[in-house]
Amino acid sequence: MKDRYLDFVNSPFGTSIARALGLPKPEVLRRHRADEAEFAGMAAIGAGPSPTLFDQLMRVLTGIGMTGIAHDSAPDWLALAHRRGAMSGRITPRAADSGSANRVHALIFDATGIAESSELHALYAFFHDALRSLAKSGRIVVLGRPPSTCASPRAATAQRALEGMTRSLGKEARNGITSNLLYVAGSADIEGALRFFLSPRSAYVSGQVVHIDRPAAAPASWTKPLAGQRALVTGAARGIGASIAKVLAEHGAIVTGLDVEAARDALDQTMLSIEDTSRSGGAHAALIADIAAADAPAEIAAALASAGGVDIVVHNAGITRDKTIARMTDDMWTSVLDINLLAQERIDDALLAQNLLRAGGRIVAVSSISGIAGNRGQTNYATSKAGVIGRVQSMAPVLRERGVTINAVAPGFIETQMTARMPFAAREAGRRLNAMGQGGLPVDVAETVAWLASPACANITGNVVRVCGQSLIGA
Amino acid sequence: MKDRYLDFVNSPFGTSIARALGLPKPEVLRRHRADEAEFAGMAAIGAGPSPTLFDQLMRVLTGIGMTGIAHDSAPDWLALAHRRGAMSGRITPRAADSGSANRVHALIFDATGIAESSELHALYAFFHDALRSLAKSGRIVVLGRPPSTCASPRAATAQRALEGMTRSLGKEARNGITSNLLYVAGSADIEGALRFFLSPRSAYVSGQVVHIDRPAAAPASWTKPLAGQRALVTGAARGIGASIAKVLAEHGAIVTGLDVEAARDALDQTMLSIEDTSRSGGAHAALIADIAAADAPAEIAAALASAGGVDIVVHNAGITRDKTIARMTDDMWTSVLDINLLAQERIDDALLAQNLLRAGGRIVAVSSISGIAGNRGQTNYATSKAGVIGRVQSMAPVLRERGVTINAVAPGFIETQMTARMPFAAREAGRRLNAMGQGGLPVDVAETVAWLASPACANITGNVVRVCGQSLIGA
Repeated sequence: MKDRYLDFVNSPFGTSIARALGLPKPEVLRRHRADEAEFAGMAAIGAGPSPTLFDQLMRVLTGIGMTGIAHDSAPDWLALAHRRGAMSGRITPRAADSGSANRVHALIFDATGIAESSELHALYAFFHDALRSLAKSGRIVVLGRPPSTCASPRAATAQRALEGMTRSLGKEARNGITSNLLYVAGSADIEGALRFFLSPRSAYVSGQVVHIDRPAAAPASWTKPLAGQRALVTGAARGIGASIAKVLAEHGAIVTGLDVEAARDALDQTMLSIEDTSRSGGAHAALIADIAAADAPAEIAAALASAGGVDIVVHNAGITRDKTIARMTDDMWTSVLDINLLAQERIDDALLAQNLLRAGGRIVAVSSISGIAGNRGQTNYATSKAGVIGRVQSMAPVLRERGVTINAVAPGFIETQMTARMPFAAREAGRRLNAMGQGGLPVDVAETVAWLASPACANITGNVVRVCGQSLIGA
Repeated sequence: MKDRYLDFVNSPFGTSIARALGLPKPEVLRRHRADEAEFAGMAAIGAGPSPTLFDQLMRVLTGIGMTGIAHDSAPDWLALAHRRGAMSGRITPRAADSGSANRVHALIFDATGIAESSELHALYAFFHDALRSLAKSGRIVVLGRPPSTCASPRAATAQRALEGMTRSLGKEARNGITSNLLYVAGSADIEGALRFFLSPRSAYVSGQVVHIDRPAAAPASWTKPLAGQRALVTGAARGIGASIAKVLAEHGAIVTGLDVEAARDALDQTMLSIEDTSRSGGAHAALIADIAAADAPAEIAAALASAGGVDIVVHNAGITRDKTIARMTDDMWTSVLDINLLAQERIDDALLAQNLLRAGGRIVAVSSISGIAGNRGQTNYATSKAGVIGRVQSMAPVLRERGVTINAVAPGFIETQMTARMPFAAREAGRRLNAMGQGGLPVDVAETVAWLASPACANITGNVVRVCGQSLIGA
């Protein structure tokens, strides 16, 4: 369809509005393709005083075939690289000025040793020199310490300040570049998170802060990290849910896709297409159930029990019934709360009571930017999605004892049948009011879910990761 | 100046964009005036099961001369009111339909007893019936329990869900209505927060979540709560700082206004105008210092020592030096970090080391929405303002031992000389992209600072309160 936004931003008034809001002109994002190398090229490395993650970083980069080149702020990097026999070099400021051949694919800054805000100057020096050298769809990753674990208020202050830097870089960078901050506690392993945030799989994830809190074992295979695992995906017939089912299968999982009777044909089709795609030989299954029904948890538990339990539960099913509250009917409130929030509680309780969620299990729940920021006409939806965040935060410590993680993804504007039916202006606004200047695709949400479901994410729990292209909208 | 936004939103394309974004048409906000009653009229009371704050709520409403009328969701309210001999009544759904005479001035919902998300239905029932009865510049206050203190994940989930409800109501309500959520721990006192959020002083504070964590004594006087206290305000010569100095003086404080040599005349003028306004007879003082200078903390400490110490420190001084990072000079980074963040640390350290900040002291630091969301061209500013949030969060537990609180205010778009110089489109966007559809005034920030500085706020620390008219922009 005609992109009327482009007409608007090129009109005299629209141009100035767009500049003021920092609305970017859309870039075609690089996404994961089976026939393209996931990682390649150079990562420029910067650091504040006493970086603590260089060893891990070098190991990861070497493992994925990227070359780490040092910025002046990271003098120890070259020594480390030479000691390890790795290819290395030195980044020159304005390498970008000499042409795109010299561009780097990632800028990684180890800020974990920064203990005073004056030392944040090293971030300025690095990004000032290096940002223009970053290729299209490049990646910015800043590594810090969780402020709550810092020894002094001054260190906590400096670490918390990294958020302002990382989010500002995401809004400045354009060209499909993402910028994310990882708070790494103690000796936590960063490989799972680094691989995700450096890969095209995180194309639409920017401006996020992720907490990594402990060691985690690498999966047997990085290409099929979910091999042999059973996953349940609710609302799997169409849209985001169907994409989640497909991507989990591509990562090796055997998927039980659940949806309501009315979506039976679509669900069957989705599950069949997964068989074709994955060639995993696993027994993917379609399960018809209405998660709002009282007996649904027992039905689901029975189905999973016969499959020997479940490793990954993705609470994706959700509905909207938008209306301002004075016009909202009782049923619109109750059904949205029931399906989007209460059903998740009932299903998890049933699975946990019967010990069907195996050790090392993963729960990933779909929240929404509306649950973070609230939204006009969505008191019911925003309340349910804020509740999903509450679930993730309050269940995380409880589930940790079982070796189970629980996290949420919060999609922004994602191109689906649902958004295609939105009024023109709402759709355009949703598409453009983010740092990528475009809507995301269901696969962007699915890749994020698959990452959080992976064994390497044993050390990420209680997090909410927005998949929103760094939407302007928030709280 | 001509309000070109109004032309835009009334053009065919602009109308649909405005509807989609939920951009409201501006309403003249009711603000505090010495010659007008601060509180009056009726507050409609709703509640979930087992509300715990009715007694306090009744006491506060009686104290400020408001009548609490009950909604069906709050059957215990009428009984309580009758027992206390208070005027009371019952709200009828759609009272609004019978004319503005029946409108209520506040909707207050006690959700503290809600332990299951199904019980959130009581909020739907109350706001569905009552929202249209709310007068212009009316107030919505929801009272909940901090999710982290809840006995079960289900209770924590339901309490966390209140955020989605409160923020959505703020975006729906229009007409200068604000909507805020107070998380009240245990037997904490709510009077200070309730008075602020019910009054015209909070005109531009909406969509906020404030944590109240313990009992707090009422001030000797609610009209001059800062009587006899000494306050330091940095950057006091103009704009927001000048307004803070004035409002603190109106609340009874004796103010030391600080600014740089170049602003000496403006500072003198501001401090003189305060003498006139407050008639407090207190020895307001102008202090010339460059907070970036190495000897400034000692100078400030000496000045305050000669005044016998200080009760309230407001870190307002700040600068912007906007530029994308590749074009940002070293000095633009360093000066912004130094003045906006490091100077706060140095000054507080000097005051604390010399015991000049008295017990019961208050620190209020000015952050920014840029510090929360990041901003293009403001890596330096956003980093410094995110650091301010880090300071508040990390210093709060340390200062608690001294009986001192530390909080931040984060202004959104505020009408000042600085914003008047912004390019037209940026200014208009900043003004409109919030639930109030307009920029705030310096006094809105100042009133929020004065509230956080008050004795009644002894139980609010480590909070960040946005003064942004519920800006769409966030993280």
